[in-house]
Amino acid sequence: MHQKRINNYILTDENAVFYECGYSCDNNIFLNLDDRKFFLTDSRYAIEAKKLVKDAEIIEIKKPLIEESKLLLEKLNIKELVFDPNDFSYADFMELSKLKGINFISEPFFSKKKRMIKSDLEIQKLKQAATLGASGFTKFANFISSSKKQLSEKELYYNAELILKDFGNLSLSFNPIIAINENGAKAHALPSNKVLQNGDLLLFDAGVKFERYCSDRTRTAFFDGQIEFSKNQKFKSNKQNEIYEIVKEAQNLAIKSVKPGVLAKDIDRAAREFIKKQGYEKEFFHSTGHGVGIDIHEFPNINQKSEVVLKEGMVFSVEPGIYIEDEFGVRIEDVVVVTKDGCEIL
Amino acid sequence: MHQKRINNYILTDENAVFYECGYSCDNNIFLNLDDRKFFLTDSRYAIEAKKLVKDAEIIEIKKPLIEESKLLLEKLNIKELVFDPNDFSYADFMELSKLKGINFISEPFFSKKKRMIKSDLEIQKLKQAATLGASGFTKFANFISSSKKQLSEKELYYNAELILKDFGNLSLSFNPIIAINENGAKAHALPSNKVLQNGDLLLFDAGVKFERYCSDRTRTAFFDGQIEFSKNQKFKSNKQNEIYEIVKEAQNLAIKSVKPGVLAKDIDRAAREFIKKQGYEKEFFHSTGHGVGIDIHEFPNINQKSEVVLKEGMVFSVEPGIYIEDEFGVRIEDVVVVTKDGCEIL
Repeated sequence: MHQKRINNYILTDENAVFYECGYSCDNNIFLNLDDRKFFLTDSRYAIEAKKLVKDAEIIEIKKPLIEESKLLLEKLNIKELVFDPNDFSYADFMELSKLKGINFISEPFFSKKKRMIKSDLEIQKLKQAATLGASGFTKFANFISSSKKQLSEKELYYNAELILKDFGNLSLSFNPIIAINENGAKAHALPSNKVLQNGDLLLFDAGVKFERYCSDRTRTAFFDGQIEFSKNQKFKSNKQNEIYEIVKEAQNLAIKSVKPGVLAKDIDRAAREFIKKQGYEKEFFHSTGHGVGIDIHEFPNINQKSEVVLKEGMVFSVEPGIYIEDEFGVRIEDVVVVTKDGCEIL
Repeated sequence: MHQKRINNYILTDENAVFYECGYSCDNNIFLNLDDRKFFLTDSRYAIEAKKLVKDAEIIEIKKPLIEESKLLLEKLNIKELVFDPNDFSYADFMELSKLKGINFISEPFFSKKKRMIKSDLEIQKLKQAATLGASGFTKFANFISSSKKQLSEKELYYNAELILKDFGNLSLSFNPIIAINENGAKAHALPSNKVLQNGDLLLFDAGVKFERYCSDRTRTAFFDGQIEFSKNQKFKSNKQNEIYEIVKEAQNLAIKSVKPGVLAKDIDRAAREFIKKQGYEKEFFHSTGHGVGIDIHEFPNINQKSEVVLKEGMVFSVEPGIYIEDEFGVRIEDVVVVTKDGCEIL
């Protein structure tokens, strides 16, 4: 994905705006116009924006965002403007494009493309997020292991949130997934009243944010009164053990194949071919990974079609899984950063 | 707002889809086509959808949502389809509208318009949400009053979330706003390290969901070691007391003016004119209220321009406020349902 130099652009997605100026809110537009940058928001956020936005002029809007943007574009006599067609609703873009004498250039995902290679500072933040996330997994395992009462998925979910948030210091990258046995075969199950019992398999997928940068991790673990979210697990049934080892080896093969110059689809293939060979092709029904940054889903996608050439500084998850309907699901996930000659698990 | 009978329509917004079929997820499309209803989602959600979706055929998609929708529309030979231009990104609608031989009819907010008058069952759920929300406010006040240590806004925020969620039984309508003194003048402030001290004014805006229906409430209260979120408050300074009483009376006047047949803008005017007369017109810089349902912001809007004629069963917030920059903010908010001859506070 070749990245053109783009001079004039408009963004409204919160993470895209944050990336540009260090602040965002749920009613904002960011405009880069020649060499000036503008942050537009309403009076609810203007005081905070004035303090926190870096290197951009704040415009406290009186009219709706799109109208104020049109006024500004007109005033500055802008002739060309790049936008992401995924970033605007059809209604908003129809309104914006009523402006005459301006050439609107559709560049899908241009902010996400821009963010694909992380800076050293971003990698530091992602590492810190990963460390905090991993520590949350350990604390959560200790909580489960020391609980005197049986816990339902709902109670597990609630306490996972609490513990991962570290009493309010952190926010979550996404709503955690916590699923016992067959519920783990529903890749995005809602927590139920099902109770965790000795001999169960527990799938746990969660992440936290550090200075807006996300962590993402999945472990599948055996519960016998105690639980540990390490990668070494021994389950009750042979089938569970067999499938767990396949997923673990698939992840291992995928991670080992990561280095600059390789195509993203080759990482997916490393995991998928191994799983296929073991006879579980259909039971691995999602992609192998996704980029991770200030969005929990960024570029590069690690799937069967992704032609992205991996480069140093790209950060993505590697998370193969096998799901046996009505029985159980196994997924193992880590986030890696591409290094000079391979990758490092964050 | 006259509501036409719409036979063929497409929806993707989660709350709009939930309203149609009792289930939704973050990758779904709902189609009403002649007398058949379809729920499209991917394999991650298909198992759950099959159990929870009411009165619609489930399609587990193999291709992206929009592509599968086009295939279905083509197969059923649909000639006309209503969509909400706010519900689709520009990119998605451009893709959908590549389908030839079909007349796409833009109906902004048609789902929200449909949901404007609540059924008895919906009003019951909204009442239950309001009761649970109010009980959360009381518990949170007790927590603050019994705290042995001083609490920062961040700690208050964290504990407010915990208490309102009632240990995992409830989810929140939105991220609570909790702001001490001058932070309350930023209508949507992020919680800071500022500590609540004797003599402070505390603004607290929060809500919970009961079976997806939202509550919404704001109280501004005086803290002197103890705190109570009742509407009767006595603050430290004359200015605070004066402004508090103005906001309280503005809310009272607005609520008193609610009944079927009145225009929504007249409710706004009742609050705004009173505040204006007291000299704080500019310090009340938002609208008086908004509809509340499965979305925290629904119709009718209660603002200076809204020509909606109030009808029995409409539910909305009444929340005037006055914000003195660098000093403090006061807002009082309740949700009301329009009854046969007036309104009831939920």
